[in-house]
Amino acid sequence: MLIKSKIKYIQSLGQKKLRDEENAFIAEGPKIVKELLEAKNTGVAEVYALPGWIAENKKFLSQTDVVEITEMELERISQLTTPNKVLAIVKKFDVNENIATRGKVTLVLDTIQDPGNFGSIIRTADWFGVDQIVCSKDCADMYNPKVVQSTMGSIARVKIIYTDLKEWLTAQKDIRIYATVLDGQNISTAKKIQEGIIIIGNESKGISDELLKFANIKITIPKKGKAESLNAVVAVGVVAVAVFVVCAGGGVVVMNR
Amino acid sequence: MLIKSKIKYIQSLGQKKLRDEENAFIAEGPKIVKELLEAKNTGVAEVYALPGWIAENKKFLSQTDVVEITEMELERISQLTTPNKVLAIVKKFDVNENIATRGKVTLVLDTIQDPGNFGSIIRTADWFGVDQIVCSKDCADMYNPKVVQSTMGSIARVKIIYTDLKEWLTAQKDIRIYATVLDGQNISTAKKIQEGIIIIGNESKGISDELLKFANIKITIPKKGKAESLNAVVAVGVVAVAVFVVCAGGGVVVMNR
Repeated sequence: MLIKSKIKYIQSLGQKKLRDEENAFIAEGPKIVKELLEAKNTGVAEVYALPGWIAENKKFLSQTDVVEITEMELERISQLTTPNKVLAIVKKFDVNENIATRGKVTLVLDTIQDPGNFGSIIRTADWFGVDQIVCSKDCADMYNPKVVQSTMGSIARVKIIYTDLKEWLTAQKDIRIYATVLDGQNISTAKKIQEGIIIIGNESKGISDELLKFANIKITIPKKGKAESLNAVVAVGVVAVAVFVVCAGGGVVVMNR
Repeated sequence: MLIKSKIKYIQSLGQKKLRDEENAFIAEGPKIVKELLEAKNTGVAEVYALPGWIAENKKFLSQTDVVEITEMELERISQLTTPNKVLAIVKKFDVNENIATRGKVTLVLDTIQDPGNFGSIIRTADWFGVDQIVCSKDCADMYNPKVVQSTMGSIARVKIIYTDLKEWLTAQKDIRIYATVLDGQNISTAKKIQEGIIIIGNESKGISDELLKFANIKITIPKKGKAESLNAVVAVGVVAVAVFVVCAGGGVVVMNR
């Protein structure tokens, strides 16, 4: 059974301030919790789950505190509209703030504030093998429950740091820096890369002028219709495909490297 | 001033049943309301707006009933967390149920149920010039306020019908039908098309077997990382770019046609 103070504690992790104080966040649902149980750079502190889920997942739980709860209790602690079997309290990732950009594709996010968008970007990056993201300090909190949920588990695999982007980009030398803009070169003409930095801007404001200066290649996703803008998540996917994974003038496809 | 019964009426349009009965839906925010005021296949029945917005948009409003309201009133009728100056009651679109697929790219959606995803797909389709979408009957309601909001106005430009997809696909002859699957040909090897049908499946279940049979070209978005799946919205953008707009072996880019 869950005591009242525990319920309050779990609910409080919905707030950034409390997550920062406790150095912990919550993750929900079988898929995400399992990926976090398997991740190396974190630790699942406590698992609250329905009896059925516990029975099915015993082998993953030997090193974790597990509390069996009822559906009604899960509803009280869950942040989801439809609670999903299990909720875990997870230690924040142990992240080395150094990001090495050599030989890698790095995503830079300028002010992505919508948690759902941010989470989906992390998931999309993970799909395309982009395993590090550098965020401006005003991006959404990666430990926000909605972000964690939208990553569908990819949060356990993509390294994410928050920093002053101007300073960070100033320190990057001799590397291609791509920016998505409305009047750049068509992405289909961009060369395929194994190394580079891709800046994605805030949806309504785009990339801020002070960051745009750092871009040495400005690219544009061709538009045939009339929508004024593309969702930032779609932009990440399209750019990843065009400059990084597949197209680029019919370049060779690098898969499963 | 808004009377109580009017407030109740507007709030009720948040529900599908009432939208169907009234043949109307609500749209919010300056951008979307303006696009709907300019659209040809619908009519904005009533506009509820703050004085500032009305003063700025007088020229668009000559043929519409406009009610000036206070911020507090807007909060009561709005479906948004942060109400945005104006709310309109709009007549549902006058849609011809016939979809001609010759010479066009048509998107087919199998059970896209998340309103935010559905709206973003409409917006993405609009960006890439795909102006017609055929939905299974269990897709989200296109007039759901969250769908309308996520389209960012594209709902006024993309033709959307709901139908029995099995019957509809059976009637399509001599046309390329693409399906996104996990083990198809790499999208980078797909030919660029001016005409065809692209089926996008439900995120967790993919495309149902009974629809997959209709596909004569199965394509896959290459994966380099470990995410299990891509967001359906991202899939639409990536497939649009690969088979339709840009890459396809370095084909010529058709823009602004």
